[in-house]
Amino acid sequence: MAEFVGARLEGDGDRVLRGVAPAGDAGPDHITFVERAAVAGRLTGTDPGAVLVREGVDLPPLDGAILRVEHPEAAFARVLELFYPRAEPEPGVHATAVVDDEAVLGDDVRVGPHAVIERGARIGAGSRVGPGSFVGAGAEIGEGCRIQHGASIFGCCVLGDRVVVGPGTRLGNEGFGFTVTPEGARRIPQVGRCVIGDAVEIGGNCTIDRGSIGDTIVGARTKIDSLVHLGHNVEIGEDCMIVAQVGIAGSTRVGRGVALGGQVGAIGHLTIGDGARVAARGAVFKDVPAGATYSGNPARPHRAALRETAAIFRLPDIISRLGRIERRLDGEE
Amino acid sequence: MAEFVGARLEGDGDRVLRGVAPAGDAGPDHITFVERAAVAGRLTGTDPGAVLVREGVDLPPLDGAILRVEHPEAAFARVLELFYPRAEPEPGVHATAVVDDEAVLGDDVRVGPHAVIERGARIGAGSRVGPGSFVGAGAEIGEGCRIQHGASIFGCCVLGDRVVVGPGTRLGNEGFGFTVTPEGARRIPQVGRCVIGDAVEIGGNCTIDRGSIGDTIVGARTKIDSLVHLGHNVEIGEDCMIVAQVGIAGSTRVGRGVALGGQVGAIGHLTIGDGARVAARGAVFKDVPAGATYSGNPARPHRAALRETAAIFRLPDIISRLGRIERRLDGEE
Amino acid sequence: MAEFVGARLEGDGDRVLRGVAPAGDAGPDHITFVERAAVAGRLTGTDPGAVLVREGVDLPPLDGAILRVEHPEAAFARVLELFYPRAEPEPGVHATAVVDDEAVLGDDVRVGPHAVIERGARIGAGSRVGPGSFVGAGAEIGEGCRIQHGASIFGCCVLGDRVVVGPGTRLGNEGFGFTVTPEGARRIPQVGRCVIGDAVEIGGNCTIDRGSIGDTIVGARTKIDSLVHLGHNVEIGEDCMIVAQVGIAGSTRVGRGVALGGQVGAIGHLTIGDGARVAARGAVFKDVPAGATYSGNPARPHRAALRETAAIFRLPDIISRLGRIERRLDGEE
Repeated sequence: MAEFVGARLEGDGDRVLRGVAPAGDAGPDHITFVERAAVAGRLTGTDPGAVLVREGVDLPPLDGAILRVEHPEAAFARVLELFYPRAEPEPGVHATAVVDDEAVLGDDVRVGPHAVIERGARIGAGSRVGPGSFVGAGAEIGEGCRIQHGASIFGCCVLGDRVVVGPGTRLGNEGFGFTVTPEGARRIPQVGRCVIGDAVEIGGNCTIDRGSIGDTIVGARTKIDSLVHLGHNVEIGEDCMIVAQVGIAGSTRVGRGVALGGQVGAIGHLTIGDGARVAARGAVFKDVPAGATYSGNPARPHRAALRETAAIFRLPDIISRLGRIERRLDGEE
Repeated sequence: MAEFVGARLEGDGDRVLRGVAPAGDAGPDHITFVERAAVAGRLTGTDPGAVLVREGVDLPPLDGAILRVEHPEAAFARVLELFYPRAEPEPGVHATAVVDDEAVLGDDVRVGPHAVIERGARIGAGSRVGPGSFVGAGAEIGEGCRIQHGASIFGCCVLGDRVVVGPGTRLGNEGFGFTVTPEGARRIPQVGRCVIGDAVEIGGNCTIDRGSIGDTIVGARTKIDSLVHLGHNVEIGEDCMIVAQVGIAGSTRVGRGVALGGQVGAIGHLTIGDGARVAARGAVFKDVPAGATYSGNPARPHRAALRETAAIFRLPDIISRLGRIERRLDGEE
Repeated sequence: MAEFVGARLEGDGDRVLRGVAPAGDAGPDHITFVERAAVAGRLTGTDPGAVLVREGVDLPPLDGAILRVEHPEAAFARVLELFYPRAEPEPGVHATAVVDDEAVLGDDVRVGPHAVIERGARIGAGSRVGPGSFVGAGAEIGEGCRIQHGASIFGCCVLGDRVVVGPGTRLGNEGFGFTVTPEGARRIPQVGRCVIGDAVEIGGNCTIDRGSIGDTIVGARTKIDSLVHLGHNVEIGEDCMIVAQVGIAGSTRVGRGVALGGQVGAIGHLTIGDGARVAARGAVFKDVPAGATYSGNPARPHRAALRETAAIFRLPDIISRLGRIERRLDGEE
């Protein structure tokens, strides 16, 4: 195990490990991990078979193995993959899938039952197209991608390698583009693409619209949780984390390494700078500078928002104090 | 009818009832109900064929039947079931469904067109698996369940009896679990289960993630509306009501009998106590005590939130009063 | 081109147009448009092949064609349709679709792979039913509709003509109707319809419930973005615009020509008057008068909300001023 995760071994390296457990619950045949020194105490009184931990972090006395690694949680992730290998679908294209003759499938592409792949779609080697999912005419999907049950990849989509698309997620749907005429709103054809970078992972039941003119873009390695909506021509940078139920309106640009908490919303045509963070439920109505941490509605610098929220809690008291002062000035008290 | 709902009959029990209608709209061949004395007046001037009502509630003079029951709305629900029996899918497994030989289907399980049931899945007697839905390898579904069109029940799921899963709902998808490494965020394998209790009903297009390590749990009889997200390792108690578009982040525990209004959000690792209520749009950033009613952003006791909101509306006035006081003190007024 | 869009031509009408581009990016063989005089400057220094613009709007000097039209954006929409005709599915019913013998399909209805159309469903001429979508027993769909991948149209639905239903959208699902009994919440059968007017367009992964008793109604020409939830018996008027992630609880009535911004929520049994607007993230807890613009949580007149928000930002300062006054009155300063 030490070899597998590239760890320096301390203590008893002879235990047989049969499973994984959180720190505190791990028994003699479990491997666990301690990400931060602050939680090392959870191991007190337990006898884990092995613990993944950084160099220099002190642990309570243990009988099992101590595996010193640079990133305990990342090492633990690899151990989990070892103990719980992902179930792979059967090789080949399922007999019930409808794959157009002019679709191009790379080596070892696996296509589940009832999937539909239209003409001119291209799917890279090793990708899996789940049951009941749809890949539209002309869509491009890279290598090692995983499209889950019931997802829609419309023809305007270009996905990089190792992209994960959650169940029921809709990529490249036509956005909310209308022009108001005397006969009612009329759709403006949406003709841009939906471009998803390498190693992007997207949760379930999301909706990411295609660009109107120009593209909607999600940068490489960005992770998107479930029920997220990205409007047309939104651009998300690389390495962002976007939590569930976030909604971003059309043409807003989100920089690299941005973190958006759950249910955050942003109106259209804004810029959220590189490395910015918006706390859960933040409502972004103005640009957010790079590196800033914002929160609240309207979203503003987090410290100011905290101060103002604390002040709001004091408002009833403020009002009584104000009345008292006025009465004193009027000579009534 | 009196017999069917277990009612004590007053008045004319000979009318033929041909339909149902809300109080006020009910005609001579309709049955209706009065849940609370406060709405009894709606019957004034109408001639309903029959009225379901509690003992002791006074009604205006009526010619039709008065059916005294303990729970008028519940009795009315049974009457609706009588007049509008649920359309049942055809018996058996549809020829286009793909059911693995090693899946185990109980008596009278009905499987719709294009459904997919993988190896080792177990589905209890009388359950219905809707068209285009997916039941993954090893999933367990109890008796009398109803899985609607296009839903996903991944292999890590364990559903009790009489569970309803709405169309497009995703149970047991991998949650938002990543560890940040120098090469970008890396997925932590999610290996826990998604456990849904007896008689839970879930609306459409929800996403309930599997546990990371350990389980995500929804307690018996809890009802969940549409577009709700529950993160990994969330635990929901029994008999909760969770309205549409609620989002609950990972590892938060919700007690028994909790009511969460529409668009409520809760961050992770919190506890919402038994019997607590959070009003629509409440943003829960801290624990909510058992029995409390919270509202607002951040969610706090509802009365305090109301008082503070009222105070906010007076803020512009407060600012003018403050300026006036300062001017008086400075001798300017 | 001038003829196609009904424009009055100024300048050089001999250029060959090969594509479309936004103002500012358009080259000699592109057509573009200028919706408002304020953005005409974007054309400075460019040489677009043709520009769609209103009569009377001054443009910088241009060598290409100037096409004077009444609604430049609407004309541009028509040009986009010309340059990017919508890909049409193949004629007929796909061999893998399951269409009941007693379903009635009009002329040139096209049904994609793995779609399911149940008995008694009626689908009007020229409508397209996408792959993997579901049309329940008895549903009525008008002419020229477009049902996208994986959508559910339950049997209680009545759709007008030219309705667009986005991928994964659920129309007519049973709403959140329960009655609480000593044995837990019990479903009240939902027996109303879900009625969608002509030319309504709905985005992806929405959930619009059927009425409980009586109908849920969306008026003609209303446009609904993605991930929107409408509860049972909600009534939306004609010509509304409802942006992504909006949620409206049961029995609320929205008038004609209403605009609801992203993530707006409304509790049940309210009225939002004709022509009202609620800004993004507004939380509607009370009726909104016709023609009003509301915002905030709770939603209130937008100007008041702006004033109050500005006042909140001054709260920490207000508290210090208040303390200073008290100290002055106490003779401490």
